[in-house]
Amino acid sequence: MAKIDTKLIQELRNRTGLGMMTVKKALEETGGDIERAVELLRKKGAAVAAKRAGKKTDEGIIHAYIHPGDRIGVMLELNCETDFVARNENLRQFAQDLALQITAMKPLYLTPEDVDEKFLEHEKDIIKAQLADSGKPEKILDKIIEGKMKKLYEGICLLKQPFVKNDQVTVEQVLQELIAKTGENIKIKQFSRFEIGD
Amino acid sequence: MAKIDTKLIQELRNRTGLGMMTVKKALEETGGDIERAVELLRKKGAAVAAKRAGKKTDEGIIHAYIHPGDRIGVMLELNCETDFVARNENLRQFAQDLALQITAMKPLYLTPEDVDEKFLEHEKDIIKAQLADSGKPEKILDKIIEGKMKKLYEGICLLKQPFVKNDQVTVEQVLQELIAKTGENIKIKQFSRFEIGD
Repeated sequence: MAKIDTKLIQELRNRTGLGMMTVKKALEETGGDIERAVELLRKKGAAVAAKRAGKKTDEGIIHAYIHPGDRIGVMLELNCETDFVARNENLRQFAQDLALQITAMKPLYLTPEDVDEKFLEHEKDIIKAQLADSGKPEKILDKIIEGKMKKLYEGICLLKQPFVKNDQVTVEQVLQELIAKTGENIKIKQFSRFEIGD
Repeated sequence: MAKIDTKLIQELRNRTGLGMMTVKKALEETGGDIERAVELLRKKGAAVAAKRAGKKTDEGIIHAYIHPGDRIGVMLELNCETDFVARNENLRQFAQDLALQITAMKPLYLTPEDVDEKFLEHEKDIIKAQLADSGKPEKILDKIIEGKMKKLYEGICLLKQPFVKNDQVTVEQVLQELIAKTGENIKIKQFSRFEIGD
């Protein structure tokens, strides 16, 4: 097995926030390829998240952030399985990161499933109208519409937004990494964003 | 004109939070009757509030309160006319008082107008069913229903709730006093209350 440079281990720890042994193993499995190691850890995180997905989340915290000037405020609820994880520093940091994310990126919904149906239909109609005279076959048009809707979701759904602290990952992926790290199902239950003049 | 005891003036200042000259004048007008002076000031407050009611409220603050334990959180938006009043200590204190009020008293709505129609009809039907065999004439029944609906509003509408710091007045009256004190239209625009396990 290839000897893994401690610099690489440190870099991967910084990028994922995971423990020494976890990132070392991932680097060994990918022969020291840090990008593939990130990908591998992400998949493992998603797998753990999927495994925990059915678990009850009756505990958690409410977190609030008031932006300097007192004109923007965000409050959110994170749910987890135990009071122990509710007091975990990683979860608390995630709550604060989310608050800053919501402050800056103004999501309107948590997930694509929450988006108002009428709003979606309206947006689809606009895209279709824009493409009406393009002369492209319907299958290609469907792909283009799908791509544009994905972009739309990235804009308005918190879980699909690029993470403010690292735009290479989505908020959902950061959540999955946190689930893998704590070993508990964790959910963003709800959030509010108030802004003076909105 | 009767000489007004400085103790009375101080007591009325404590009860209303208003300035020395204002409470002195109210006590003079009511011959030193502190209860009537309170009533008089309240009416004046309501009058000022009514006068300012049409004024634009584009400024304000967002305020949040997380209850110790991080299991209950409240966020609210107060609107006023100028940035000057948004920074006013009385307004800031009111924001914090409201946050504690919402934490403790769990209002579901801001005003009776916001209450869900179906919920109201359902509650009225329950009350009518309870009174069906009472044999009372319809006019009396209407009065009883009106009284019970008022009680209901007091429970679930923030503006109609008794104020936590002084249950002799409603939140709406405290708001009117603040409007009189600052001379600006002030509105509670919105609030959120999150609680783990709700």
